[in-house]
Amino acid sequence: MTPQRRAGTYRTFYSEPLEIDRAEGCTIIGADGRRYLDAYNNVPVLGHSNPEVAEAVHAQLLRANTHTRYLDPLIAEYTEELLALLPQHIEALVFACSGSEAVDLALQLARFTSMSEGVVVTRNAYHGTTAAVAEVSPSLSGAVPDRVALVDVPEPHRTDFDAELGRRVAEACRALTARGHGVAALLVDSTFTSDGILAGEGVRLTAAVDAVHAAGGLYIADEVQSGFRRTGSWWGYEHLGVAPDLITLGKPMGNGLPISAVAGPRVVFDDFGARRRYFNTFAGTPVPVAAAQAVLRALSRPGWAERVEEAGARLGHGLWEVCAEAGVHPDVRRSGLMLGLDLRPAHGGDADAAGAHAGRLVEDLYRRGVLVSSTGPAGAVLKIRPPLVIADAEIDVLTATMRDALAEAPR
Amino acid sequence: MTPQRRAGTYRTFYSEPLEIDRAEGCTIIGADGRRYLDAYNNVPVLGHSNPEVAEAVHAQLLRANTHTRYLDPLIAEYTEELLALLPQHIEALVFACSGSEAVDLALQLARFTSMSEGVVVTRNAYHGTTAAVAEVSPSLSGAVPDRVALVDVPEPHRTDFDAELGRRVAEACRALTARGHGVAALLVDSTFTSDGILAGEGVRLTAAVDAVHAAGGLYIADEVQSGFRRTGSWWGYEHLGVAPDLITLGKPMGNGLPISAVAGPRVVFDDFGARRRYFNTFAGTPVPVAAAQAVLRALSRPGWAERVEEAGARLGHGLWEVCAEAGVHPDVRRSGLMLGLDLRPAHGGDADAAGAHAGRLVEDLYRRGVLVSSTGPAGAVLKIRPPLVIADAEIDVLTATMRDALAEAPR
Repeated sequence: MTPQRRAGTYRTFYSEPLEIDRAEGCTIIGADGRRYLDAYNNVPVLGHSNPEVAEAVHAQLLRANTHTRYLDPLIAEYTEELLALLPQHIEALVFACSGSEAVDLALQLARFTSMSEGVVVTRNAYHGTTAAVAEVSPSLSGAVPDRVALVDVPEPHRTDFDAELGRRVAEACRALTARGHGVAALLVDSTFTSDGILAGEGVRLTAAVDAVHAAGGLYIADEVQSGFRRTGSWWGYEHLGVAPDLITLGKPMGNGLPISAVAGPRVVFDDFGARRRYFNTFAGTPVPVAAAQAVLRALSRPGWAERVEEAGARLGHGLWEVCAEAGVHPDVRRSGLMLGLDLRPAHGGDADAAGAHAGRLVEDLYRRGVLVSSTGPAGAVLKIRPPLVIADAEIDVLTATMRDALAEAPR
Repeated sequence: MTPQRRAGTYRTFYSEPLEIDRAEGCTIIGADGRRYLDAYNNVPVLGHSNPEVAEAVHAQLLRANTHTRYLDPLIAEYTEELLALLPQHIEALVFACSGSEAVDLALQLARFTSMSEGVVVTRNAYHGTTAAVAEVSPSLSGAVPDRVALVDVPEPHRTDFDAELGRRVAEACRALTARGHGVAALLVDSTFTSDGILAGEGVRLTAAVDAVHAAGGLYIADEVQSGFRRTGSWWGYEHLGVAPDLITLGKPMGNGLPISAVAGPRVVFDDFGARRRYFNTFAGTPVPVAAAQAVLRALSRPGWAERVEEAGARLGHGLWEVCAEAGVHPDVRRSGLMLGLDLRPAHGGDADAAGAHAGRLVEDLYRRGVLVSSTGPAGAVLKIRPPLVIADAEIDVLTATMRDALAEAPR
């Protein structure tokens, strides 16, 4: 029996789940031999079954795979390579295994540093699944405890997005302080993935970060979704006009090997370390780090920023066109190869109907051999974020398949 | 610069940290070419750089490595193989990446099921590093919050160990209930590793588990240290005379690949899953599962229980002898290849001096090319738990090196 049938905590995708035989590049091959174009999975950033990653991991498996109680030149080398890609004030990093663990540790660091408990997150935030991180992930259950404050994210096309979000964050900080929690952190996914994927000229965090700093909290940029060139740039926060105090990294970091990290100023780790230990057996061990180094070096080759932007633009434009042809006018929001197609009517209207439409499209695209998902309020935003190695021909297949799906899965 | 020098949260072993070049079997080779006999690391249960694990991982890396939103026959197969080794009432399991994540989820499940918050752990417990698990790990900071109650573990040779521990757990349950938290769980490492490694005929949990059940809580067996044949048996709790409600697995599960799990009755997962989602991107993904399956199948070959017991007895007896020769009379506690040499005087006396002695021995053994550690109150218990593939000749080297160290690192 599958683990998913045995334990009711699992949720598979699709009414008929996809059973996987193998995967390569942007293609997943089902147990029935069908080929699927993967436009969903952001972890295998260099493509499924990437041979460079496989060779790096294999070589390291035959060499050593201990832990950070010992020194290992590979870990030191990778640490320096990664820190060199981050702002100068980000001087240190601590490895963990999953995005959840990285965010959990970032919250511990922020609470320790600020001597406060309150955290501000977005209305539909998702940051992970440990007990402490589930608390700041209202998309899991809808509810948050008293020490967490939610802010509604303004419409991304509002010209005063930055100022309005700043006002809302300031208000949330005041509420947390009034409730006696103080403010430890503003925690934001840099592409607002579970809030429906927000991106664009006006999407800035400067006023919000000013507000949280004024309240004594840290700004944690959750780069688990948006990091490692998903947006063309190395990091998603680069588009938001602000420098983070702490940065969490995960998902694509090892192209699928479990590795994550929290990066920040040295003093934050030193102060915490003076009072508390943090040792994580599998974190930053040589095998996942070998994968991560292969990823980092591959993504350092010239041309990625341009290619991600070019591929994203081709995909965004193509999808916009086939939607318009079908009389559907989604708000296409995009940063690099992170795309959201918001199917909700532009001026209010029935979000649930749009969510149902998005759900039908996800299923229909699956039956046609293309994997995407939906996200955001009411699930009305198609979430499209293929491996970064997607080719133009694959983008065109995706677009053509969307045309067919729109014709057969009408609103 | 090493990550350990950059971030003060890291703690390396030894006054001069060991820098690793490579490792094989029970041998770690330093950057300076020195060879160390590894009698500390319980993760590479089949030995460092095990070729069977490396080949399984490599083959899977070139095949697929997605996640549990899809189905994969490998994951289903491994789930069934693992559940077949657990008691019949343990019907389901959920994968995670680290022991910390597994314990974090087990606590979420226990709190959800019991509708209570209180947790009972041992005085020097260590269960992991997420915020929620650090709360139940007093060995990290000494302090626990109001919803956690600590029990002192009785002397392991007391004939009424079981009854006395039961009385103390019952008292802790009453205290938690009186403080308004109720009782969610009794959480115990089955070899009491951080409490100084307890084992032996009388070390039973029957009365303690009765007490926690009477208070409405679950018994969580933390098998992260003690599972996968460390004690000869598959699971450490088998020695304690009780059946767990939930079981957490980790460390040796994938011989170093990050994989862990929580196992328990189906209803516990289903009830939680009806209200809350739990999805963990890297958890139970095909690559770590391929490693875990290689481990499970290797440990299923005949003869392991006998070999672990034989090797453990040879090591325990040898260490006892060289200690006696040196006029040191530690309490040698052992379950399979999990050994604790408690250097504290038998009838009270100076535990801190014994801790200092243990610390000198750990350093001296390192200089002589043998890796062990210390644990327990005052760090006075030598912790010895080599890879399970340790050969008789290596055991004899360990014993002989201990003889030399005892001669030069007197009390």
